[in-house]
Amino acid sequence: MLKLRTSDADFESKFARIVRDRRESDAQVGRDVATILNEVRERGDKALVEFTTRFDQHNLSSDEDWGISKEACKAAYDRLDTELREALETAAARIRAYHEGQLPQDRDYTDEIGMRLGARWSAVEAAGLYVPGGRAAYPSSLLMNAIPAKVAGVERLVVTTPTPGGEANDLVLAAAHVASVDEIWRVGGAQAIAALAYGTERIKRVDVVTGPGNAWVAEAKRQLYGVVGIDMVAGPSEILVIADKDNNSEWIAADLLSQAEHDPTSQSILITDDAGFAAQVEDAIDLEFLKLPTAKTAKASWDDHGLIVIVDSLDEAPALSDRLAAEHVEIATADPEAIFAKLRHAGSVFLGRMTPEAVGDYIAGPNHVLPTGRRARFASGLSVLDFMKRTSFIGASDDALKAIGPAAVRLAEAEGLPAHALSISRRLS
Amino acid sequence: MLKLRTSDADFESKFARIVRDRRESDAQVGRDVATILNEVRERGDKALVEFTTRFDQHNLSSDEDWGISKEACKAAYDRLDTELREALETAAARIRAYHEGQLPQDRDYTDEIGMRLGARWSAVEAAGLYVPGGRAAYPSSLLMNAIPAKVAGVERLVVTTPTPGGEANDLVLAAAHVASVDEIWRVGGAQAIAALAYGTERIKRVDVVTGPGNAWVAEAKRQLYGVVGIDMVAGPSEILVIADKDNNSEWIAADLLSQAEHDPTSQSILITDDAGFAAQVEDAIDLEFLKLPTAKTAKASWDDHGLIVIVDSLDEAPALSDRLAAEHVEIATADPEAIFAKLRHAGSVFLGRMTPEAVGDYIAGPNHVLPTGRRARFASGLSVLDFMKRTSFIGASDDALKAIGPAAVRLAEAEGLPAHALSISRRLS
Repeated sequence: MLKLRTSDADFESKFARIVRDRRESDAQVGRDVATILNEVRERGDKALVEFTTRFDQHNLSSDEDWGISKEACKAAYDRLDTELREALETAAARIRAYHEGQLPQDRDYTDEIGMRLGARWSAVEAAGLYVPGGRAAYPSSLLMNAIPAKVAGVERLVVTTPTPGGEANDLVLAAAHVASVDEIWRVGGAQAIAALAYGTERIKRVDVVTGPGNAWVAEAKRQLYGVVGIDMVAGPSEILVIADKDNNSEWIAADLLSQAEHDPTSQSILITDDAGFAAQVEDAIDLEFLKLPTAKTAKASWDDHGLIVIVDSLDEAPALSDRLAAEHVEIATADPEAIFAKLRHAGSVFLGRMTPEAVGDYIAGPNHVLPTGRRARFASGLSVLDFMKRTSFIGASDDALKAIGPAAVRLAEAEGLPAHALSISRRLS
Repeated sequence: MLKLRTSDADFESKFARIVRDRRESDAQVGRDVATILNEVRERGDKALVEFTTRFDQHNLSSDEDWGISKEACKAAYDRLDTELREALETAAARIRAYHEGQLPQDRDYTDEIGMRLGARWSAVEAAGLYVPGGRAAYPSSLLMNAIPAKVAGVERLVVTTPTPGGEANDLVLAAAHVASVDEIWRVGGAQAIAALAYGTERIKRVDVVTGPGNAWVAEAKRQLYGVVGIDMVAGPSEILVIADKDNNSEWIAADLLSQAEHDPTSQSILITDDAGFAAQVEDAIDLEFLKLPTAKTAKASWDDHGLIVIVDSLDEAPALSDRLAAEHVEIATADPEAIFAKLRHAGSVFLGRMTPEAVGDYIAGPNHVLPTGRRARFASGLSVLDFMKRTSFIGASDDALKAIGPAAVRLAEAEGLPAHALSISRRLS
């Protein structure tokens, strides 16, 4: 963990380095991924069988080896204890309600010269959702990806997930049942992304691929961007907490650790105007390492990437926070609105002392798939818009074409495009 | 040019191949581009000087060699003849008006349990716009990229453009004046994209890069996707015209040629229910090749990629068109609405006999930067949203956290994330 004071002489150079650093490991997976993508494109299911045997020790032969049925998802859901089932349903209902409010409006109007103009939104036909196997197989991620797709109107929602040794995660299957997923395929890694993008004999291609994954999955999505739509190039999770001294230091410590426990490369940052409070939070974090089951991961993250910035005044916080453009920003002050009004670059903001970031991970309603690695400067969280596209339209009346056609002809001629000009001038004569 | 009839026995296999084919040339530029990006990242302006000397025969030394001032743009604007200046202004005003209607609404509400939820949109701080040199330096493209950025609220709009031998295009400079571009740099190719994404001593980095370019520029954008936001991986232009026999065959011929004249890899497609009309259009196109100044390009495009599909009934057209998911779709029938209602995948649609596609290229108002290569299945045209991002926010009251916190705790525990659970449960006790 690094502790900086804005009043220190070397603050700017140290802080600038943190802003510049990327925590993504630049793994040399590009070429391997390119090979896998090409194999799946050329040889389809045969390649999937080989890669799945090699990487997941799972043999794809019978229908049951290949896919998981809706009935199996329903059965997994029925096996959950009532409380957990209800928690999943509450989360799903709240996520659905929030995302329904994102549905865009069509436009259709006729302007003053009689030109009809507009834009019509429609859903993509099919979306693919990658669900990692093992530790990172989170049912909450399935809900956060699947529900916006369904709200958008996607007809065919396909999940691919590795099931090493054939083992699937019951909670994920239950979440797939709750989110009305249409197909689940037992395929993982870059080969799954290739199957979704190109299609194979068994797995029909989709239009958009979303969902988290390891470096191979992320690289496969990056390489296939343009062949399909993708959500985002995602990196390690991050939280930035802006807190005054009137906070419970144990609460803030838990908030910082809730990101640190995700991954050793996660980053937790505290900005406070009180050095004494910072010390209390540090102590609370150290105490937690003695008992937290995820302490090993959390400690690695905090030791390597943790950051405390002591400011003279919290007025400095919004500008510092904007430079870090963090995925999650908590504002734990008496008047969070005052700081929020000055913030510009953040994936999601958590207002006030009673809004821990984790409430947004599961159940508040907004999406937890958010831009990381300073990308909140230009990117947004996942939304129904990621599963929709817009078709603009133009309808010219005779009068409208007469009114503006000559100007278009002039521009086309100036650009050296005579057929463009001709297509208008012929209609005007 | 290929002519197919849906009633032919081999129609499906031939049509399916066209849908599958990509016309993008898969140039082996990936490694070269990676080298250039790395050089600019590491050595900044020095690398720009070297590449610009090598590729553009232009020596970057004085301030005037590096940049083009706002005064120079104003002077270029003043040099234009009045008619052309007015055409630029009309286009700019209409593009601005249409894009202002795209500005998204913020959300801020408190739900039934007392949870405040919302989303706030904001512009990116800086956007970079690539403008190709030479033949493809279109002032209309500058307007179509720059105006949405300015409407979104981007403070710093940077243009990079190669000026081989120092020569800049007066029309482009005039358009930059009209669109209130803030900076213009005489740098092109992959090195320009690198400068925009990473920043150099002279050129400060931006958040989003848009604009057309050659294969090197496109590959640079693809490789830097995630470091900056980008608009789209764009391919050759395409038009699909759905027309009955009651059209002027010369008008439709001009429409098809208006895409063909862009590039030898452009694609023009006619779907009609009348073989006689198709023959008339063919004849009109052949006649045009004898006199069109752009005939060489247009003929190459039409010969290699042109397509006529004769259908038994225009009722077949929407499904065929959706499979091709073309950038531009013209519906030249008496009741275009009937066909438009059944269309789903298209970049932009042109309704009725008096709406040639070219009117949308210049002056109608909607953006002419549109998804190509079947990407209208999942992608949209350029809009103000490409220059904005959304920050979601959550504010929990005590009661709201009490109402849904326990369910979140249950889910966090089930996912094996105890610090997540702790950050909520501590606040509940």
